[in-house]
Amino acid sequence: ELGEFVEEINIVKPEFVRSFEFESKLMPCTWIVVRLDGCHFHRFSEIHEFVKPNDERALNLMNTCAMAMLEEFQQDIIFAYGVSDEYSFILNSSSNLYQRRASKIISAMVSFFTSMYVMRWKDFFPQKQLNYPPYFDARAVCYPSRNILRDYLSWRQVDCHINNQYNTCFWKLVASGKSKREAQESLKGAQLQKKVEELAIDYNKLQIMFRQGSSVFWDEGNNIVAHQENGGSTGSNRKVVIEHCDIIGSTFWLEHPNILNEKQ
Amino acid sequence: ELGEFVEEINIVKPEFVRSFEFESKLMPCTWIVVRLDGCHFHRFSEIHEFVKPNDERALNLMNTCAMAMLEEFQQDIIFAYGVSDEYSFILNSSSNLYQRRASKIISAMVSFFTSMYVMRWKDFFPQKQLNYPPYFDARAVCYPSRNILRDYLSWRQVDCHINNQYNTCFWKLVASGKSKREAQESLKGAQLQKKVEELAIDYNKLQIMFRQGSSVFWDEGNNIVAHQENGGSTGSNRKVVIEHCDIIGSTFWLEHPNILNEKQ
Amino acid sequence: ELGEFVEEINIVKPEFVRSFEFESKLMPCTWIVVRLDGCHFHRFSEIHEFVKPNDERALNLMNTCAMAMLEEFQQDIIFAYGVSDEYSFILNSSSNLYQRRASKIISAMVSFFTSMYVMRWKDFFPQKQLNYPPYFDARAVCYPSRNILRDYLSWRQVDCHINNQYNTCFWKLVASGKSKREAQESLKGAQLQKKVEELAIDYNKLQIMFRQGSSVFWDEGNNIVAHQENGGSTGSNRKVVIEHCDIIGSTFWLEHPNILNEKQ
Amino acid sequence: ELGEFVEEINIVKPEFVRSFEFESKLMPCTWIVVRLDGCHFHRFSEIHEFVKPNDERALNLMNTCAMAMLEEFQQDIIFAYGVSDEYSFILNSSSNLYQRRASKIISAMVSFFTSMYVMRWKDFFPQKQLNYPPYFDARAVCYPSRNILRDYLSWRQVDCHINNQYNTCFWKLVASGKSKREAQESLKGAQLQKKVEELAIDYNKLQIMFRQGSSVFWDEGNNIVAHQENGGSTGSNRKVVIEHCDIIGSTFWLEHPNILNEKQ
Repeated sequence: ELGEFVEEINIVKPEFVRSFEFESKLMPCTWIVVRLDGCHFHRFSEIHEFVKPNDERALNLMNTCAMAMLEEFQQDIIFAYGVSDEYSFILNSSSNLYQRRASKIISAMVSFFTSMYVMRWKDFFPQKQLNYPPYFDARAVCYPSRNILRDYLSWRQVDCHINNQYNTCFWKLVASGKSKREAQESLKGAQLQKKVEELAIDYNKLQIMFRQGSSVFWDEGNNIVAHQENGGSTGSNRKVVIEHCDIIGSTFWLEHPNILNEKQ
Repeated sequence: ELGEFVEEINIVKPEFVRSFEFESKLMPCTWIVVRLDGCHFHRFSEIHEFVKPNDERALNLMNTCAMAMLEEFQQDIIFAYGVSDEYSFILNSSSNLYQRRASKIISAMVSFFTSMYVMRWKDFFPQKQLNYPPYFDARAVCYPSRNILRDYLSWRQVDCHINNQYNTCFWKLVASGKSKREAQESLKGAQLQKKVEELAIDYNKLQIMFRQGSSVFWDEGNNIVAHQENGGSTGSNRKVVIEHCDIIGSTFWLEHPNILNEKQ
Repeated sequence: ELGEFVEEINIVKPEFVRSFEFESKLMPCTWIVVRLDGCHFHRFSEIHEFVKPNDERALNLMNTCAMAMLEEFQQDIIFAYGVSDEYSFILNSSSNLYQRRASKIISAMVSFFTSMYVMRWKDFFPQKQLNYPPYFDARAVCYPSRNILRDYLSWRQVDCHINNQYNTCFWKLVASGKSKREAQESLKGAQLQKKVEELAIDYNKLQIMFRQGSSVFWDEGNNIVAHQENGGSTGSNRKVVIEHCDIIGSTFWLEHPNILNEKQ
Repeated sequence: ELGEFVEEINIVKPEFVRSFEFESKLMPCTWIVVRLDGCHFHRFSEIHEFVKPNDERALNLMNTCAMAMLEEFQQDIIFAYGVSDEYSFILNSSSNLYQRRASKIISAMVSFFTSMYVMRWKDFFPQKQLNYPPYFDARAVCYPSRNILRDYLSWRQVDCHINNQYNTCFWKLVASGKSKREAQESLKGAQLQKKVEELAIDYNKLQIMFRQGSSVFWDEGNNIVAHQENGGSTGSNRKVVIEHCDIIGSTFWLEHPNILNEKQ
């Protein structure tokens, strides 16, 4: 039996088969954004009974996974911003993770995130078992300058704001007895700002995480490392933190100059 | 507070930010292979005490995930072949999954697989908790013809065979008291076939899954669907099966003509 | 002076600068089409007083360049099809020209073609000097099978037919005294076949090159190479020929089985 | 005859055939370099009897073509640098030429350059007819910042310097009676700076164009456009100029701040 198999081995030509492989490399010295998005999360959130319009447990689970991402890819991911079932991870422009091969970066990151999501599920939804495997897709985009990268992040936070206004109005209408269809009709083309007032929603009282999304980054700690017992390596004071704040204006970035400070 | 934020919204220009996105589309009418590989699984298998050289539980977990993949992407994945911590999924040349966008295909597939891997872990390793999240990377390659696709699959199965011979010898040497370094030295450049004999390994007695890897595909069932009780839709007789067999020779493919039969 | 310059040399880091280069390789074992198109040839043809709707001299110049292309890239280009200011060159699926790097293939081909076009201009337009440099753009597309490649060629020949019908009607209307605008209006949405009859155009009497475009390929010659005086190498009997014929139906391809016969 | 043809038209599916086309777009807001290189110019320069190591006529022809390029693509090309049979064209980071499609940019540029080269040949080589069509290949590279773009240009100018030293030594050795092979041997691994002195070459007396290459750019003219007779539009004073100077140091760029001044 084996004899035949061994003969077959010789007719296989790995170089030929591998010549079809291609590497799409991300441009050096640009800021890489890897954005993850839940696949079919509309259905997933219904079946797993997420609170509407925002489920705190689900958001905290997402945030926990994001924080683990920064720990796992700590040489590379410098910032992350999340809202709903989406998370954007920013890689330093000087990062050489996987030699900047797009497929490898995208796949390893989405896989690690997903793995963590399933592992930690029970900590956030102790009463509710996973009915089927949740999954995410991911894509990479490069931005050639800090300013354009900040435009990207602003775009995501504006989206968070608009979606949250819409969803808050929508579920308020549904709570008031309208059908989902009627709620949708009533919001079509409406100025959300006015609708919020009309529906007597005290928007600024909503949890800030719902309004601003979540920003995850490294807090460099104070520089006085007096008596470090275990004699830890440099940077042992760094820790991953999460904030819910305006990342569109300059204030945040001026207060955290290290985040986008190219390491080159 | 909000007033300032609302002003900021107007300076964000989504079209500009989105102009940096790019789509890498996989060539139509070609066979897409998505190959997943465990990241740092050497360490993962040690920490989770996989049996060497082959851990049946780990392989069965991989196979279970692969079978779930065929169910989830049933319009698209027609065949899968796995060995060790690697799995190749073949998409039909006529597939239009995610409009053949590479990032989306790669990321959704690796994410679903990972999700299933973590969810089902406890069924295969009931005594052993996951210490940290396992993850995989993935890549896509296209092949323009059935013949070259079969060359690809042959290449993977030959690799399975060579690696299994090597690993079987290696761990036999270690079991006999050699250090890992000595075992490695003793196998450097050796003819594996001879080493197998020398070490009195009855290779053909090894479990066939270890020697041939695992092939997952749709069994179309018999065509006489006499009295289907629940009046199921067409194809309800299809089911995903797994076999451990030679996929290099023609026999397997002649016996399963439907697998690579382009649907066009 | 030089001293300073020499110091500067040392600060330049070629590997860094070259790390931004990328190669887009065309998939192996697929048929490559490189299609050239005149840039701003509407204006070019007016200024150089091309006869409308078809200028025989201009087409013959294009054909001459195409034939030279087959001679220059004789290991690679197996067929070419041209119409108006456009030409498609087909590279054998087994071609490894420039390791199938897209930029190099596209640029070298369009440059050679252009060079020949300008060099030979005076032979076809002896009375008319080039007023300014004509130029072409080019793109590459890959097709995974002979059948789809033939679909491509059929598409171009159908386009030739439709455009020729349209232009013949258009210029007949202009000749009859209508303004270009009126001619355009009168043809908008019209069934061209009917218009041709209505305008009493004896379409089949038009020169076949105008109706069918031009096909350029290698004629393998007869195989009896009795006494070759200069002792030429194998294949010395091959010569490039041009025909104006139907390439949509099977007849042409059955009569010339060598053209698309993969060399592998 | 036509009847059959008309039937054939209906079976052609342009959308299908076009689905194989792909666009490789160059990243927005990055500096695009299109570098042209002579194909087989070693042979071309021998057959057309170029003076060695540098042929002034050939370089002036290249420069003339480069200047025409800036005129033709005047919204886009802001600078060009040439040496030997190579020329690099820099497109503004804000350029949207052909929607930044790589194939189109590369092909149109190399085609225009080639066209001009052949048209103007006789002005620089009046005694020598073109024996066969010269041609060039081309590639595009993007750089995300002005600094890295300047690194690129420095790299090219250093290359110019090194090659010119080498070639000057080589041809001096050949002139002194050595064979080409001997000359090559004698220079292998040598420190060029020393060799130049050893061979008593007064390097700084060599024509500056040979030593520094050629830089082509827009001279914005003086800003006092008092009484412009034809009421020309802004910028009518701009003209393309050529200089042979150090572009590695800062001096040149400080003196010409407009060149790399993003237009955004």
